[in-house]
Amino acid sequence: MSQRAAEFRELTRERCLELLAESTVGRVAWTAPDGPQVLPVSYAYSAGEIVFRTSPAGVLAQLARRQRVAFEIDEIDLSGRTAWSVQVRGSAQSLVGSQRVLDLWRNDTVVPWAGGSRTLFIAISPTAITGRYLRAWS
Amino acid sequence: MSQRAAEFRELTRERCLELLAESTVGRVAWTAPDGPQVLPVSYAYSAGEIVFRTSPAGVLAQLARRQRVAFEIDEIDLSGRTAWSVQVRGSAQSLVGSQRVLDLWRNDTVVPWAGGSRTLFIAISPTAITGRYLRAWS
Repeated sequence: MSQRAAEFRELTRERCLELLAESTVGRVAWTAPDGPQVLPVSYAYSAGEIVFRTSPAGVLAQLARRQRVAFEIDEIDLSGRTAWSVQVRGSAQSLVGSQRVLDLWRNDTVVPWAGGSRTLFIAISPTAITGRYLRAWS
Repeated sequence: MSQRAAEFRELTRERCLELLAESTVGRVAWTAPDGPQVLPVSYAYSAGEIVFRTSPAGVLAQLARRQRVAFEIDEIDLSGRTAWSVQVRGSAQSLVGSQRVLDLWRNDTVVPWAGGSRTLFIAISPTAITGRYLRAWS
């Protein structure tokens, strides 16, 4: 097996926040009653939180009750062999009956792809944000 | 807020397995000692398992000891507003000292991007595989 040359570095917090603000799709992971779970969501980064909408009847509604989660965004360039990812760890809970929900709803800030009655707003409040950049061997 | 039209359907198990075999990057989620964790990995789908290589010194080495995990692959087409994702739930553990590791090593089947001493092989054995396809409103 040949030796691999690679560049690997941590992203600054500022760059992580930029990438969170620019991206619109990420994956949320949590410990469900039946084990670890991970699902993609379309989200907005709003007031320092990751906000997404889901159906009260869906599996993501498990996150309405405050609990710890991990959230991840990444971009993998297979041809250029570069990649970055940002990891967020924190807690999720529903946004209910607040002025903020009304504002988010009115402004269409958080638009779920899936349509339907996605009336439940979930917000992830970060406790740690880290990121890394990788350029693989050529 | 306008009404959203969307197509949403479950993928067949056969299609999920095809997508697992075709893809090379996914995200693995587990319950770490300090809470849920999710990280991207480059992987191969080999003999019905998701196999990736990592560093014995890295955070993914937590998965060497058998435990439950979730694994996810997806493809989001922002312009076409279509998306699919496949979710795998199962258990991870290290592949140590087996003929299979030797074969994987020799054949370069599982090539990690990051290079370095990624000598630890982790295999995820699926207990459930599901997938979904989504076409969003136009």
